[in-house]
Amino acid sequence: MTVVLKLGASVVTEKDEPETVDEGALSEAADAVAGSDDDLVVVHGGGSFGHHHASEHGITTSAGSHDAPGALAVHDAMKALDDAVLDRLHDHGVPALPVHPLSAAFRDEEARLTLPVGQVETMLDEGFVPVLHGDVVAHAGAGVTVVSGDELVVSLADQLAADRVGLLSTVPGVLDEDGEVVPEITSYDEVASVLGASDATDVTGGMAAKVAALLALSAPAAIFGPDDLESFLAGELPGTCLRG
Amino acid sequence: MTVVLKLGASVVTEKDEPETVDEGALSEAADAVAGSDDDLVVVHGGGSFGHHHASEHGITTSAGSHDAPGALAVHDAMKALDDAVLDRLHDHGVPALPVHPLSAAFRDEEARLTLPVGQVETMLDEGFVPVLHGDVVAHAGAGVTVVSGDELVVSLADQLAADRVGLLSTVPGVLDEDGEVVPEITSYDEVASVLGASDATDVTGGMAAKVAALLALSAPAAIFGPDDLESFLAGELPGTCLRG
Repeated sequence: MTVVLKLGASVVTEKDEPETVDEGALSEAADAVAGSDDDLVVVHGGGSFGHHHASEHGITTSAGSHDAPGALAVHDAMKALDDAVLDRLHDHGVPALPVHPLSAAFRDEEARLTLPVGQVETMLDEGFVPVLHGDVVAHAGAGVTVVSGDELVVSLADQLAADRVGLLSTVPGVLDEDGEVVPEITSYDEVASVLGASDATDVTGGMAAKVAALLALSAPAAIFGPDDLESFLAGELPGTCLRG
Repeated sequence: MTVVLKLGASVVTEKDEPETVDEGALSEAADAVAGSDDDLVVVHGGGSFGHHHASEHGITTSAGSHDAPGALAVHDAMKALDDAVLDRLHDHGVPALPVHPLSAAFRDEEARLTLPVGQVETMLDEGFVPVLHGDVVAHAGAGVTVVSGDELVVSLADQLAADRVGLLSTVPGVLDEDGEVVPEITSYDEVASVLGASDATDVTGGMAAKVAALLALSAPAAIFGPDDLESFLAGELPGTCLRG
């Protein structure tokens, strides 16, 4: 089984301290990943590592930059977080290898992402766990722009024909008006009122965008909190299950 | 004009001190590169940065490894050298961005290298200077193996339909029996006796392998020393010119 697992940046980094890894949460996640028998691809977001530098250099998913040192500052910050994720995975015996999106992916003039996956497939076949992350990528006509972890998850799940997709979040799933986890979503309309219109414009992190993107996948997906990671890796779809 | 320039590892690193950059030589090369008007792709070798770790973990271009921490040790050493190259290029105003081969390339069961170049082409179109380097890459049936800078040069030159290819070396070109630079080579047989049979077996660094690979290109190539870098970047083919 091929599984794409996103480790939410808010889970693996400290919210209140810039560019600081939440070692406890990351270590727990790495321990759970070590128990997986699937062909696993791990993706993580940038959190305070990437966002700060991207904002400082005015780089977003649509606003580009031709400033190479600025682009490299964002990229290097993401690599610093990635180094921590790789180290912790190796500590738990997970044979993780990095796949930096800037080195592989690019956008065309219409901002469509191309992410070749032959390297990812070869790593999986050889028993490695490829690790990707939010990053900057070359963008035709715009220099470089941001690619979010969520966008990579969608591209990987589609191209690898993933059997399951999981988003490890700080919340235990998509929450309704009463703060309860919505167990299953099969269409965006079911939850549009709960998710809110303004949230839908946040292309890198908002829950509405995540839901819309995951519903568009052919694979079933789940959004869940840290307590449910083991059950997801054991084959279940805990938290909120999304079937589009 | 699209130009692929290889900075020999022996030029940009100190021969006698492991994992030490030759700051003076690297800075001179970066200064020359800054004066180029071409669409330039830079490739550098590993020198003492990569070779030491690759040897320690038993990884060569044909002998693979499934040890992820070992592979990462080689990769990280190459990244450390790459960081120095990128920093120096940025210091001289060259808009360089890294393309790490492990993140993009892979080998099939027959050891054939696939290196997708859409990211490199987009960077070039946007005015960036992509920088690649010798690295480890996923290899079907073998784990990871080494990809040399020279192998990347050949793949890039072919796929990008490069107009010129240059190898900056510590020597001023291919030398004949008397130590004089051979000005032009059009077939391997012309120089087979000079290059020597034993040298031909060194797939990552030997002059014989370089000559054979460059003669197979459709683009004209040159092997030259540091004094000739400016003239190469100005459009000439100094040192030894190779036309296969």
